[in-house]
Amino acid sequence: MSTTSHHLVVIGGGFAGLWATRALDTADFRITLIDRHNHHLFQPLLYQVATAGLSAPDIAAPLRNILRQQRNVEVQLGEVIHIDAARRQVVLADDRIVGYDSLLLATGAAHAYFGNDQWAPYAPGLKTLDDALLLRRKLLMAFEHAEIETDPAARAAWLNFAIVGGGPTGVELAGTLAEIARHTLKNEFRNIDPREAKVRLIEAGPRVLPSFPPDLTAKAERQLEKLGVEVHTGTPVTHIDADGYRLGDTFVPSHTVVWAAGVAASPLARTLGVPLDRAGRVLVAPDLSVPDHPEIFVGGDLASVQQDGKPVPGVAPAAKQMGKHIARALRARAAGQPAPTFRYQDYGNLATIGRMAAIVHVGKLKLSGLLAWWFWLAAHVYFLIGFRNRFVVLVNWAMAYWSYQRAARIIFGRPQRGIPPKE
Amino acid sequence: MSTTSHHLVVIGGGFAGLWATRALDTADFRITLIDRHNHHLFQPLLYQVATAGLSAPDIAAPLRNILRQQRNVEVQLGEVIHIDAARRQVVLADDRIVGYDSLLLATGAAHAYFGNDQWAPYAPGLKTLDDALLLRRKLLMAFEHAEIETDPAARAAWLNFAIVGGGPTGVELAGTLAEIARHTLKNEFRNIDPREAKVRLIEAGPRVLPSFPPDLTAKAERQLEKLGVEVHTGTPVTHIDADGYRLGDTFVPSHTVVWAAGVAASPLARTLGVPLDRAGRVLVAPDLSVPDHPEIFVGGDLASVQQDGKPVPGVAPAAKQMGKHIARALRARAAGQPAPTFRYQDYGNLATIGRMAAIVHVGKLKLSGLLAWWFWLAAHVYFLIGFRNRFVVLVNWAMAYWSYQRAARIIFGRPQRGIPPKE
Repeated sequence: MSTTSHHLVVIGGGFAGLWATRALDTADFRITLIDRHNHHLFQPLLYQVATAGLSAPDIAAPLRNILRQQRNVEVQLGEVIHIDAARRQVVLADDRIVGYDSLLLATGAAHAYFGNDQWAPYAPGLKTLDDALLLRRKLLMAFEHAEIETDPAARAAWLNFAIVGGGPTGVELAGTLAEIARHTLKNEFRNIDPREAKVRLIEAGPRVLPSFPPDLTAKAERQLEKLGVEVHTGTPVTHIDADGYRLGDTFVPSHTVVWAAGVAASPLARTLGVPLDRAGRVLVAPDLSVPDHPEIFVGGDLASVQQDGKPVPGVAPAAKQMGKHIARALRARAAGQPAPTFRYQDYGNLATIGRMAAIVHVGKLKLSGLLAWWFWLAAHVYFLIGFRNRFVVLVNWAMAYWSYQRAARIIFGRPQRGIPPKE
Repeated sequence: MSTTSHHLVVIGGGFAGLWATRALDTADFRITLIDRHNHHLFQPLLYQVATAGLSAPDIAAPLRNILRQQRNVEVQLGEVIHIDAARRQVVLADDRIVGYDSLLLATGAAHAYFGNDQWAPYAPGLKTLDDALLLRRKLLMAFEHAEIETDPAARAAWLNFAIVGGGPTGVELAGTLAEIARHTLKNEFRNIDPREAKVRLIEAGPRVLPSFPPDLTAKAERQLEKLGVEVHTGTPVTHIDADGYRLGDTFVPSHTVVWAAGVAASPLARTLGVPLDRAGRVLVAPDLSVPDHPEIFVGGDLASVQQDGKPVPGVAPAAKQMGKHIARALRARAAGQPAPTFRYQDYGNLATIGRMAAIVHVGKLKLSGLLAWWFWLAAHVYFLIGFRNRFVVLVNWAMAYWSYQRAARIIFGRPQRGIPPKE
C-alpha cells in the first residue's frame, strides 16, 4: 500500500460509510474506517431483535469480515470524540489521533428526548444492538413481574405497555408486541393471561406513519387495532417516570415505556464548528461536502439535505445513495474534476406493522395488508443479501409465522440477584 | 389444579430439574420450578457461544415455553438464597417465600478458583450465557487491541491466550480459538497476522481429558497440537493478574486468560445444613435424597454420588438420569412405596477438540479424529432434539465448517467509550 496515496478516513460503518468505502475498492485511496462497534448493523430489522424474533448476530456482520478482500481499507475499532478540521485530524476517546486528507462523517443519529432527558432511564430507545437487547429484557421481564405480582393494580401496571412515537419503529414495535402478548406467550403463564396486556401506541401528531398518504395511514391504524394495539393520536406524552406516564392529563401506571419518538444527530457533528439544522444535522452543500471544508463529506442520517423543497428522509436507501455519491465525488476531486450534485432517488416507502400486515407506497402503487407484507418481506430479504445470515433469518421468520414462536426469547445482559423491583 | 395435591418445588431448570419435572407430567403433583434465568441451557454447546460459532438463543429455550403444555407446572423466575428445611420453605432474593412438601435441589455448579478468587476478574470462566458473551467479547477484543497497538511487546501480550484447565471445556475452547486465529480471522487485519497468536492449554495434572484412557488422551493432545495449540501438562498456573500469568516459574505477559480448571457446587447447598463433600456437593443417600430429610432430593452436578467406588461424573447424561430417577422416587413415595436406588448408566464419553477432531470412548470402542468428530456431532444434534433451533444450529455448523466463518462474531454487552486499555 503506497504511503503517498490519498488518505480517506470514514467515521461510521453504517449504510453511508460502508457503501462509500465499498464503492472505492478500486480507487488509489488509503482508507481507514473507524467505528465504535465491530459490526455493520442491518438497522431495518433491529426491532426484531428487540422483540425476540431474531438474535443479535442475525442482523449484524463484522466490518472486518465484510471488507477483508478490500486491501486499501483498514478497519479500526474506536470512538471518535473530536474532529479538528483545521489540522485535518480526528481524535479518539483513547487519545489516538488519526490524520486525514479527506473525511467522511457518517455517524448517524441517536434517539432524543427533546429537552426531557430525565425520561431516558424509564423510556429506552432503539438504535444499537445493545439497545435492542436491553429492550428485549425489559419487555420479557414485564410479563415475569406480572406473573409473580399478587396485587391486582400493581400487576396491571406491569401489563401496561406504551410505545411513544408513531413512526415506522414505533409501529413495528407495537404491532409485534401485541402479537407476542396475544399469541406467543399463550398458555405459558399460570397467574396472568398475557392477552390482558395493553399495548398503546402514542403519537402526538394527528396520525401514525406521517410519511405515507393519509389513506394508507388509516389502513395502517386499522391493521394495528386488529392486532390488538390501542392507537392514540393527537395526544402528547407529557411526563414519564418509574411508575408510569402522563398522556395528556391522565396518568397511566406502567413500567414499560419505549421511546420511538425522535432522533437527534450524533453529537460529533457539533465539533466540526459548521452550521447545523435544528436536529443537529450538518447543512451540507449540494455535493454533500461541508461548506468551507470541501475535504469533509457528510452522509446518512447526519446530513441535512433538501430536495425539491422537502428533506431527504433518514432511511437506509438514502444513506446508501449518499455513500455511493460521496465515493463518486471523491474520485472526481482526485481526478481534478468538480464533484457532482447529489440527487436522491426515491424508490418508495414500506412499513411493516406485524403479522402479515404492512403498507407499501411505490410511485402510484399503494398496498396494504398481506400483499404489502409479502412485498416488505421480499424487499428486506433481498437487501439482506451479502449477509450470511439471510438464510437463517428466513428460517426463523418462517417458523415464527407458522408457530407464533419467537426464536430469541432469552433474557440475559446483567447479573440477576432475584428480580429487581423495577427495571 | 387441586390445592390439596402434593407441592414439589424444583430449584434449577437444568438437565436434572427439567428432566424430573417433565417425567412428572402425569403425576398428581403441583410443581413450582424456580430458576434464576428464563431459559434452559444446552450447556454442552456453551463453548460455541463463547467462540462466536453460535448465538445465545441457538442453545437456549425458554422454560415457560418448554413446559407450557404441562398444566401441573408453574415456572417462576427468581433466585433462591436460602432453604429452610425445618419449615419446608425456600426464600428468594426478593423476599418471596415458597413452601413445599418435597424439594428438588438442582442448581448445579459454578467455576471455582480454589482459594484464588483474586484471579476471577482476569480469568473468567464459562457456566452461563452471560459468561459466554463476556468471554466472546474478551477473545475478540484481544485481536482488536493487538491491531491498534504499536509496541511489539505489548502487541504480543494481546496475542497470548491461555486456557487454564485441560478438561472437556478447556480442550474445546483451546481448539476452537486456535482455529479462529489460524483461519477465521485470516486477511481481516492489516497490522497483525492473527496466526501469530499463541494459544496455550495449561493442565496441572499429567494429561488432558483425564476421564479418557491414556492412549486416547495422547491422541487428543496430538490433535490439539495439529490445530495449533501448545499443550502444557504437569505445570500449574501459580499466579494471574491483569498483565499475565505465571506458569511454574515463568511469567507470561497476557491479557486473555480463560478459567476452565475447576467447578464448585452452588453455594445454596450450604444452607441445607447437611454434610457436603470437598467440592461443596451434597452427600446424598442411594435414592438421591438427603439423609435425615427424605423430602429433599438433590440432582445433577450438586449431588455427590459414588458408584462402584468411583464418583458419578458431572455430565449432562448423568444429570438427566438423576432427574428421571428422582421423579420415579417421588412417585414411589407418593404411592407409599420405598424409593428405588439410583444407578448411573454410563453410555460412553465424548470430547470434541476442534475442526473435525474429537475422541470417543464407548464401551470397548475407541475413536479419534474425523470419525470421532462425526460421532460427537451426531450425538449432540440428536440431544438438541426438542429445541427448535436444532436446524439453525446445523446450518450454522455446516457453514462454519465449509467456510471457516463464524456466525456470531458480534461484540456487545457494554457501552463502549473508545477501547478501554485492558479488559
